[in-house]
Amino acid sequence: MSVLGAGCCGPEVYELAKELGRLLAQNGFTVVCGGLQGVMRAACEGAKSKNGLTIGILPGSDREAANEFVDIPLATSLSHMRNYLVVLNGDIAVAVEGESGTLSELALALKSGKKVIALGRWNEMPGVIPARNAREAVELVIKELAANVSSRSA
Amino acid sequence: MSVLGAGCCGPEVYELAKELGRLLAQNGFTVVCGGLQGVMRAACEGAKSKNGLTIGILPGSDREAANEFVDIPLATSLSHMRNYLVVLNGDIAVAVEGESGTLSELALALKSGKKVIALGRWNEMPGVIPARNAREAVELVIKELAANVSSRSA
Amino acid sequence: MSVLGAGCCGPEVYELAKELGRLLAQNGFTVVCGGLQGVMRAACEGAKSKNGLTIGILPGSDREAANEFVDIPLATSLSHMRNYLVVLNGDIAVAVEGESGTLSELALALKSGKKVIALGRWNEMPGVIPARNAREAVELVIKELAANVSSRSA
Amino acid sequence: MSVLGAGCCGPEVYELAKELGRLLAQNGFTVVCGGLQGVMRAACEGAKSKNGLTIGILPGSDREAANEFVDIPLATSLSHMRNYLVVLNGDIAVAVEGESGTLSELALALKSGKKVIALGRWNEMPGVIPARNAREAVELVIKELAANVSSRSA
Repeated sequence: MSVLGAGCCGPEVYELAKELGRLLAQNGFTVVCGGLQGVMRAACEGAKSKNGLTIGILPGSDREAANEFVDIPLATSLSHMRNYLVVLNGDIAVAVEGESGTLSELALALKSGKKVIALGRWNEMPGVIPARNAREAVELVIKELAANVSSRSA
Repeated sequence: MSVLGAGCCGPEVYELAKELGRLLAQNGFTVVCGGLQGVMRAACEGAKSKNGLTIGILPGSDREAANEFVDIPLATSLSHMRNYLVVLNGDIAVAVEGESGTLSELALALKSGKKVIALGRWNEMPGVIPARNAREAVELVIKELAANVSSRSA
Repeated sequence: MSVLGAGCCGPEVYELAKELGRLLAQNGFTVVCGGLQGVMRAACEGAKSKNGLTIGILPGSDREAANEFVDIPLATSLSHMRNYLVVLNGDIAVAVEGESGTLSELALALKSGKKVIALGRWNEMPGVIPARNAREAVELVIKELAANVSSRSA
Repeated sequence: MSVLGAGCCGPEVYELAKELGRLLAQNGFTVVCGGLQGVMRAACEGAKSKNGLTIGILPGSDREAANEFVDIPLATSLSHMRNYLVVLNGDIAVAVEGESGTLSELALALKSGKKVIALGRWNEMPGVIPARNAREAVELVIKELAANVSSRSA
């Protein structure tokens, strides 16, 4: 799953993203994110606490820029264009608060036909599925995935 | 100036984008856009009616995909990532209505520190400068450019 | 036409690239290049001396990095990946000497099914059409274009 | 390590690339490649036979296009520009025969200051370190890595 969010966040949002990462890993999902700090680091930290796999798709050319909870750092040299790769490599995207960078990821996910679940800030955007907390977000991920599978097999 | 908008639009939005292109060209601005149909074509058509220069930054690898009012078509093979190049190559971005693709451009523009002026739909987004019509949008472009220059020279 | 070559070159190679630009412009061709110094600047300078159009596809995010003979600078933030856009936006590529950057452009052009004409260094590469001087290179460009057109119409 | 090579190859080259993947994995290296068939599949197959980790950086937008021995498929939508990401994400590149696509990767690796070791076809290119067989290639990888480390610490 793609986790979208800012590279800088307060302790409350950090805890939220960490719980999201933890629950995603517990349910067998890989965390795909932008690999940097803030929400990205929190989601990876949470996922690693449950032995999840974490992939960090970085904007620059240096893999060392990844946070310490990224298993697979990927350098891209694509600057903000790497945001598209973050959404392209998850089946569903979950946004955790965030600013304009997160908004661009969310919009690119919608444009690509991906489902987007939002915790906080962007959860009233048209097309976005709102979640009240990390647990509900992961329940929605599972529900949407199941819907995807049945619509394909139909 | 970057003109952002959907590849498919109704006649009212088409007229609005065409007027915007016309006024941008009259004021000596190049129109930089995604090169396809809808708002992109309308802005180019308007600009060409006043002998403006139009640049179309295309998502695919075929320059022939550009609309007939594009002077300089640029193939990128970048899919939706080309949205970033559209905003990178204008000093200011003007969004005309639009859906999630436009939203991604607008968000990438804000993320890159560019001013964004919006006609219609996205004009209540935080950080976006709203305009009521094409004339006001171009006045805002000129005002923001002047502010940019004086803040640089300050 | 795409002109490929290094961002740093001696006076002899500079003169060769300038003559190439001049002859391309005289024959009505746009010069598409990487927009920086060396061979890129020389080809643009030559083209402008005959009122040709020059497009510079830049590796970074700043249009100001283009040399003074570029009419249409295009910022890409793609680092070395912009080499692909240089070849994608010309019908045929002409390489003027060059190092590994030029070699990557030349290889990407071949990979994309484009004809590549080489002046100097890379002219013995398999698949590359060698030219002894700028005049012969432009004659080959014209001949290959004509062949393209007739193979399409056949 | 980046493994470079064509998406289509004969049985002899396949065996060579497979042995290379096997020896890289045995020595603790991750195989980073373009994720498709031919040499890319062979190197991944070899690496998996020794429990190595394999990363496939794909040109398109569909992770399903990866060969069955790729652990971490990465969709990029970058077409041939993804070749740059393949070299960016390895410390050293090893080319196994190959055509113009491989040549572009090899040239981009040299341009980025990476060491390139070549088995077969491109091993006489200036700047490339030739290897006679897979074993020698991996010995050269280890030697070059050690040299890198000591030049950094010097």
